[in-house]
Amino acid sequence: MLALTILGNNSAIPAFDRNPTAQILQTNDESYLIDCGEGTQMQMTRYKIRRSKISRIFISHLHGDHYYGLIGLLTSMGLLGRTQDLHLYAPQPLEQILLLQLSVADTHLPYKLHFHPLKNEGIIVDDKKMQVACFSVKHLIECWGFLFREKKNPRKVNPERAAIYEVPSAFYEKLQQGFDYVTKKGTIVPNAEVTVAAVQAKSYAFCADTIYDESLADKIREVDLLYHEATYLKDLHERAAARFHSTTQQAASIAKLGNVKKLLLGHFSSKYESLEEFLPEACEIFENTELALEGACYKV
Amino acid sequence: MLALTILGNNSAIPAFDRNPTAQILQTNDESYLIDCGEGTQMQMTRYKIRRSKISRIFISHLHGDHYYGLIGLLTSMGLLGRTQDLHLYAPQPLEQILLLQLSVADTHLPYKLHFHPLKNEGIIVDDKKMQVACFSVKHLIECWGFLFREKKNPRKVNPERAAIYEVPSAFYEKLQQGFDYVTKKGTIVPNAEVTVAAVQAKSYAFCADTIYDESLADKIREVDLLYHEATYLKDLHERAAARFHSTTQQAASIAKLGNVKKLLLGHFSSKYESLEEFLPEACEIFENTELALEGACYKV
Repeated sequence: MLALTILGNNSAIPAFDRNPTAQILQTNDESYLIDCGEGTQMQMTRYKIRRSKISRIFISHLHGDHYYGLIGLLTSMGLLGRTQDLHLYAPQPLEQILLLQLSVADTHLPYKLHFHPLKNEGIIVDDKKMQVACFSVKHLIECWGFLFREKKNPRKVNPERAAIYEVPSAFYEKLQQGFDYVTKKGTIVPNAEVTVAAVQAKSYAFCADTIYDESLADKIREVDLLYHEATYLKDLHERAAARFHSTTQQAASIAKLGNVKKLLLGHFSSKYESLEEFLPEACEIFENTELALEGACYKV
Repeated sequence: MLALTILGNNSAIPAFDRNPTAQILQTNDESYLIDCGEGTQMQMTRYKIRRSKISRIFISHLHGDHYYGLIGLLTSMGLLGRTQDLHLYAPQPLEQILLLQLSVADTHLPYKLHFHPLKNEGIIVDDKKMQVACFSVKHLIECWGFLFREKKNPRKVNPERAAIYEVPSAFYEKLQQGFDYVTKKGTIVPNAEVTVAAVQAKSYAFCADTIYDESLADKIREVDLLYHEATYLKDLHERAAARFHSTTQQAASIAKLGNVKKLLLGHFSSKYESLEEFLPEACEIFENTELALEGACYKV
């Protein structure tokens, strides 16, 4: 199970009650925070996100609208008595900024903050149930996208059904992997008779801030949900290129090229009070598109 | 004319829709920002404070709830195209933090930011209409209070009345200073006949975060408005002392000792959902007290 809650969907300057980028990706056991613009901790309170559940934080790049809320969140976690380790994946210079800010305040966090600088594309988290990879994204400064993939879940053995067919428990691991059981007499017990299918493993790609870049399509190919920025409507493609951002239709083109299941648009420019033109423009190219709306939760 | 608008009145962790410390002091010509907790720029939008009017920013100390919103505000001012100089008065280490954050984002502000490190007690701004002094405050880390004093305004000459008495315009400056005019024939024209009194010069003291410290009374003596923190109710005076904060009644005692005209309480602890006990406790000791409420404007 993956579910994405949007805490901020605006770019650069907060405007029209829209906040800078921050997203919560909930897995079965943990919450991940992706980017952390100013005010993220207030948005968490507003949308009832439990700070204590967050085990990992991913920061795409060091433009302020993607990380100015981080030091406040880290400090508050400490004041609230957190003791659980926290893992932070971010461009290297962030570490010095955080250490400096903690040092001038004479603050010693009561939990261990593991700083993982992003250096090369590839896997950065590989645990029992999840794999997270980072990939390089073309923006004005060093910038990273993140690809979250649930690991394939094992099939679930139904022990009552297995007992009827006298399958020994030593064979359960094979059952979970999908094998049929063959009795001593040579009778085949089809796997589906004694197991149920697992919940399907899902994937989510977060593309951060990016210029239109077709090479992204390979990096996010066939994910269940793609978040791609759409700072501008299609008429401002020149401004988008000059500022290393994308338009609605460019985002939709990447979704189409990458053959993803669903596209989510965000990082809207403060020049737009109304967002109503964003969706129709994108849907012309890629139909299964939604706008990332603050407070909304998107099941992957 | 001095008017104070509260943008944040909470301490440490934002809670119950209360934000960290930030205040706008409006003078006749300019706006000053005093402290700048996370989310201050959003609060400015909410309460229709024009960022472009802010000419000077004063930061009391480098605990996050007093400055984490600053870098976002400075960046937004730049994105909005500010060209007017901005003066920042703050503890020295803030400069390195800001420069580092601007540098990693490759941001060049389009306006000149003058950083004035706070070093000694005394006058830090002395212009035509206002004088601002800083004073040292006892807290866990280096911390400063600020005293804002309007300069005595000249009396206003009524030119029609002055013409009746044939006062030459060369004497107007003397009239503004309160002198009577003596005609060539030796007749005294009383000043009050040809001028009106100026608006009275006002004063405001901001005491930042502080332990109960009676020596503060001399520093803020007889100001029109005193802001003193009251993080806790009176029963928690031991916790207040341990954390170098104050209670309701300690704040009120400083107001009384300093013989100020009015007291404003703020910096409420996140442990209190309701603030209703704060005012009665303080009023037992100093009657002319109000709570600093977000969005409210207090005319000094």
